[in-house]
Amino acid sequence: MNFSSDNAVGAHPRVLEALAAANDGAAAGYGADDWTAAVDARLAEIFEREITVFEVATGSAANGLALAALVPPYGRIYCHEASHIQLDECSAPEFFTGGAKLVPLPGADGKLSAKTLAASLAAFPARPPHSAPASVLSLTQASEYGTLYSLDETGALADIAKAAGMAVHMDGARFSNALAALGRSPAEATWKAGVDVLCLGATKNGCMAAEVVIFFDPDQAGDFAYRRKRAGHLWSKSRFLSAQLDAWLQGDLWLDLARHANAAAARLAGVLDRAGVAVPIRTKINEVFALLDPSAAAALQSRGAQFYPWVCPGDAYAGRLHRFVTSWATANEEIDAFADVLSSVIG
Amino acid sequence: MNFSSDNAVGAHPRVLEALAAANDGAAAGYGADDWTAAVDARLAEIFEREITVFEVATGSAANGLALAALVPPYGRIYCHEASHIQLDECSAPEFFTGGAKLVPLPGADGKLSAKTLAASLAAFPARPPHSAPASVLSLTQASEYGTLYSLDETGALADIAKAAGMAVHMDGARFSNALAALGRSPAEATWKAGVDVLCLGATKNGCMAAEVVIFFDPDQAGDFAYRRKRAGHLWSKSRFLSAQLDAWLQGDLWLDLARHANAAAARLAGVLDRAGVAVPIRTKINEVFALLDPSAAAALQSRGAQFYPWVCPGDAYAGRLHRFVTSWATANEEIDAFADVLSSVIG
Amino acid sequence: MNFSSDNAVGAHPRVLEALAAANDGAAAGYGADDWTAAVDARLAEIFEREITVFEVATGSAANGLALAALVPPYGRIYCHEASHIQLDECSAPEFFTGGAKLVPLPGADGKLSAKTLAASLAAFPARPPHSAPASVLSLTQASEYGTLYSLDETGALADIAKAAGMAVHMDGARFSNALAALGRSPAEATWKAGVDVLCLGATKNGCMAAEVVIFFDPDQAGDFAYRRKRAGHLWSKSRFLSAQLDAWLQGDLWLDLARHANAAAARLAGVLDRAGVAVPIRTKINEVFALLDPSAAAALQSRGAQFYPWVCPGDAYAGRLHRFVTSWATANEEIDAFADVLSSVIG
Amino acid sequence: MNFSSDNAVGAHPRVLEALAAANDGAAAGYGADDWTAAVDARLAEIFEREITVFEVATGSAANGLALAALVPPYGRIYCHEASHIQLDECSAPEFFTGGAKLVPLPGADGKLSAKTLAASLAAFPARPPHSAPASVLSLTQASEYGTLYSLDETGALADIAKAAGMAVHMDGARFSNALAALGRSPAEATWKAGVDVLCLGATKNGCMAAEVVIFFDPDQAGDFAYRRKRAGHLWSKSRFLSAQLDAWLQGDLWLDLARHANAAAARLAGVLDRAGVAVPIRTKINEVFALLDPSAAAALQSRGAQFYPWVCPGDAYAGRLHRFVTSWATANEEIDAFADVLSSVIG
Repeated sequence: MNFSSDNAVGAHPRVLEALAAANDGAAAGYGADDWTAAVDARLAEIFEREITVFEVATGSAANGLALAALVPPYGRIYCHEASHIQLDECSAPEFFTGGAKLVPLPGADGKLSAKTLAASLAAFPARPPHSAPASVLSLTQASEYGTLYSLDETGALADIAKAAGMAVHMDGARFSNALAALGRSPAEATWKAGVDVLCLGATKNGCMAAEVVIFFDPDQAGDFAYRRKRAGHLWSKSRFLSAQLDAWLQGDLWLDLARHANAAAARLAGVLDRAGVAVPIRTKINEVFALLDPSAAAALQSRGAQFYPWVCPGDAYAGRLHRFVTSWATANEEIDAFADVLSSVIG
Repeated sequence: MNFSSDNAVGAHPRVLEALAAANDGAAAGYGADDWTAAVDARLAEIFEREITVFEVATGSAANGLALAALVPPYGRIYCHEASHIQLDECSAPEFFTGGAKLVPLPGADGKLSAKTLAASLAAFPARPPHSAPASVLSLTQASEYGTLYSLDETGALADIAKAAGMAVHMDGARFSNALAALGRSPAEATWKAGVDVLCLGATKNGCMAAEVVIFFDPDQAGDFAYRRKRAGHLWSKSRFLSAQLDAWLQGDLWLDLARHANAAAARLAGVLDRAGVAVPIRTKINEVFALLDPSAAAALQSRGAQFYPWVCPGDAYAGRLHRFVTSWATANEEIDAFADVLSSVIG
Repeated sequence: MNFSSDNAVGAHPRVLEALAAANDGAAAGYGADDWTAAVDARLAEIFEREITVFEVATGSAANGLALAALVPPYGRIYCHEASHIQLDECSAPEFFTGGAKLVPLPGADGKLSAKTLAASLAAFPARPPHSAPASVLSLTQASEYGTLYSLDETGALADIAKAAGMAVHMDGARFSNALAALGRSPAEATWKAGVDVLCLGATKNGCMAAEVVIFFDPDQAGDFAYRRKRAGHLWSKSRFLSAQLDAWLQGDLWLDLARHANAAAARLAGVLDRAGVAVPIRTKINEVFALLDPSAAAALQSRGAQFYPWVCPGDAYAGRLHRFVTSWATANEEIDAFADVLSSVIG
Repeated sequence: MNFSSDNAVGAHPRVLEALAAANDGAAAGYGADDWTAAVDARLAEIFEREITVFEVATGSAANGLALAALVPPYGRIYCHEASHIQLDECSAPEFFTGGAKLVPLPGADGKLSAKTLAASLAAFPARPPHSAPASVLSLTQASEYGTLYSLDETGALADIAKAAGMAVHMDGARFSNALAALGRSPAEATWKAGVDVLCLGATKNGCMAAEVVIFFDPDQAGDFAYRRKRAGHLWSKSRFLSAQLDAWLQGDLWLDLARHANAAAARLAGVLDRAGVAVPIRTKINEVFALLDPSAAAALQSRGAQFYPWVCPGDAYAGRLHRFVTSWATANEEIDAFADVLSSVIG
């Protein structure tokens, strides 16, 4: 009954097998290996266009380096006030960019609205060089609340961003879960909707430690290669990043795992619904947010259910909202066991 | 009729005279001159305690260096969303601190409320090392809207800050105007109300280019001396910063000039009131905010009145609010001339 | 015949097995897992004292983060002009420290001498705040030329550093090879000789991607935990870093692998010697430097021998020096094959 | 007898008069004033071409901001090991550039040689992205030892720099002294010899606090305007920087003052020569370096002569070399008085 995070479980067996298979003999390092080339080719196929791809081991590195390619060291990055880059990365974007300014905006259930973005841009006094230039819009797909931007919503936000001279960054730590839920092609969900750079997360969804930064316009990658090295994120034995991703992308394993996690969350939400627990945000991915009194939460936890209270700016449910996360490895038995515990506590 | 900014006018004659008087002969540089020692002593007297003082030429440098002494390069700095450090310094705080994160908060008429600050702190998920530590509260006295924090308000905000482990920075670009309006002692308005560092602005109020950073606890100054040098803000011929400040502080010239500017603004507000122009924010310092239709504003400007529309996050009057700033040099004749122009446009 | 680098080969089978064994079930992340605790305990045992340990995936990250804990953002870091932090990390130390200044010094065969360090310190005009403070001495053990500092040499350099107020950092990307060659205890080779922080490399010597930063004085670690997170170097699934290291340290596998690599280099040097190829630097670890004409080098490479010309500041052999690196996995057969190729080219 | 530094004296009377004259009435700020436009035009005339000019108050700011326009945050900047940017600016270049790496090179009497530069470039292993790209060559004219690069020497160094893809920065804190000594036109001494950016110092030579950054190719200025603001180096009352420079440049006052200072140094060197004091470096500008025993130096200082021992990397005279600096204000009487004191000590 570990619903604490999708990074609580390990790697999918096929990922581990790929590591073992890649271990034999010598190979070129620093991204010049065959596995990296294979990942590049596979992603170009998946996204249906020429792209420039960089691999790193963590999501904070992926986001920070991607943003640094898009923003001058004093530019403004618009993001949701509950976004990971604003709350959970210990000012990593400021570090990687050399001092850019995040402008956090409110928005219901973790999503920015076009109206809020447009109003914020209009209210910012544009007086260069006093005002930092608006440089990047960062969207999180799926959001930190497990909600999704429709492709129309993404497109409308991207249109506003581009009219203001901004590039569009997508934090896709759970992009595979989002994509599985959207039922649209990777291309439609990204560059066809105006996204310039996608940070595609694999760690939470079946890898050990592997993330991909995808520039849909290779020119925008700029000096990413230097910046990755400078930040200590270029692996010497790079095959061990790529082999994970290669296995993860083969045969659409990444989407199968995402569908599994999403389905587990839906099942878990059903359990909560049937027990009469309020689930105020309806997600379509592998997160469930439920309202629980602290005493009920404690009782569930004491019986072995692992999950966390959710504290977040702009959260209308502060104090009672709790987050449950399922993963590629969540078994029905875990959810059934949780249903039993829930009955005993609530019923 | 130049109400565009209090930096549109030059220096007070006594400041200029002091520069000329200081020019004779050789003197030690880099802050080891006699004028700097005199300023230090005078400020200790004014603030009624031992202090550590650093002089710089600009307000952005003063704020940035002061903040850098108080925050780790990843810490959080709480400020008003309309504050100068957030809007008007081209990400200087992020630069000087090496990447700290500003957390902009809303608040009526340019002021933070204790309630908003407390709520924001409570809603920030404190999960070190994922969450950046809350390090500094920055208050602007007077605010960008010309409003004042009462000493009780300052104290209440400082109490919340300190309970959360934060130091309190005061951006006092117009502190002399605020002090003149508050009618309280410099000590009461600062360290006795919980302020740790004051950036005391002199440029807008009668100097050429001179600002003072005052640490009320010398230990908090840390390595400011190194950071000032590294940022190119240590003057070799330092007497020319200090001589300005020395003259400005002598005989309370600084407060006399502030009172003059404040009175001029009150007179200007009266002119607007009598003409039936809405003045929605009642300031006590040298700024007046009035609601004007764009056509009326243009008509005034075409007749020689200089002022700007005011664009700002959280501004409820966006599109119609205009800012008028008076200064130590504003003559009654300018205001009378404006009254005439206003009559011809409005009447 | 791959002597290009010790990162050309993969991971030792026991490291891979450990990853597979660690993969089962859920585990706490971000360093709160059992494997991390085991590595901490094992290292404390190995180094015979209380220590503070941080794991990261790359050597550049280890060095950069370690240095950032020891130096203010403007401090001076003394290092050899051929050191990895100076030549091969794309200014990573400057990035992680927020702008510290590396002072590269010459020294025969990749080693700093006490005399050169003392002279450089004496010739640096100490005029704070104009001069950046001397903060860290960085030693590379083994050096980039495969040479070793004796414990006396380390101690003498550390004494000078400490007298000047500097901490001592050891870049130990090949520390295990050095230790195997020195025949002294880990404690003797580090903190007992004055080393404050060791970056212990495991990637080159049998791991996939794993390095350890060891602070011998826990107080010196400062805010490393925040800085690691901010730099994107804290793994969510941290067990996969720790499991590698756990296996690597168990039963002194790390030293066995180092001894193997060192012995292979000695065998390779013997081959070169017997062929009459000059080996101007006598290393004791897993690197061999030989003088080859470009035409001979090309002939060897065309027959399948992989190695690189060595270009380096202060290199007296520029143009003819070539580097051969052996590893934990180098087989005698590879060396014998190289001997055959060498005979055919040289003989 | 103050020969401690050329910043020990104040401003030339015409500079002070210009400040007073500029003080009347209101003026646009932030560089939009008439005085700034006049300086721009005057410099374009002086340098015989279209240029882009930025004013700041200190030399460290000028150098740091100029370098930041030319180098990525990880690039290499080649400079002399005794240069101001390496020794005397508390790592300001690293700060302004966001972490670039200075590569200090030796060279007799403060000057880089083409041979040394070429050798250093050749010995740096060019392995992107591991090696930071060579981005800027910084020359100091006149050097810290008061020596001059001939135009041929400048040209030869610039040719090497450009062949390596580097821009050429000139730290001209004493450029006016150098120009007066060279007897060539400003254009010949800079862009016609391959210099891309000149930091032209006025503070040491008759201003209070004023320096100019001149980009000979406006495209290379990049985002300097944003960076200057972000660093707190954009003055609100900008007329007070420009009015100094305007007066300084009018009627070639700058060159007249430089010639005066240079002549004073020549006279001082003559005094030392006649007293039998060794003057091992023959400068042509306003600095004199003499060999004195510590006891003789102390005796001179006790009799009122102000000067400093000179400590510098690569200094062959360490321990006995002392620096004397004359200025635009040095009177013959001071030198004559020194001659008397010298006689009494030495004779």
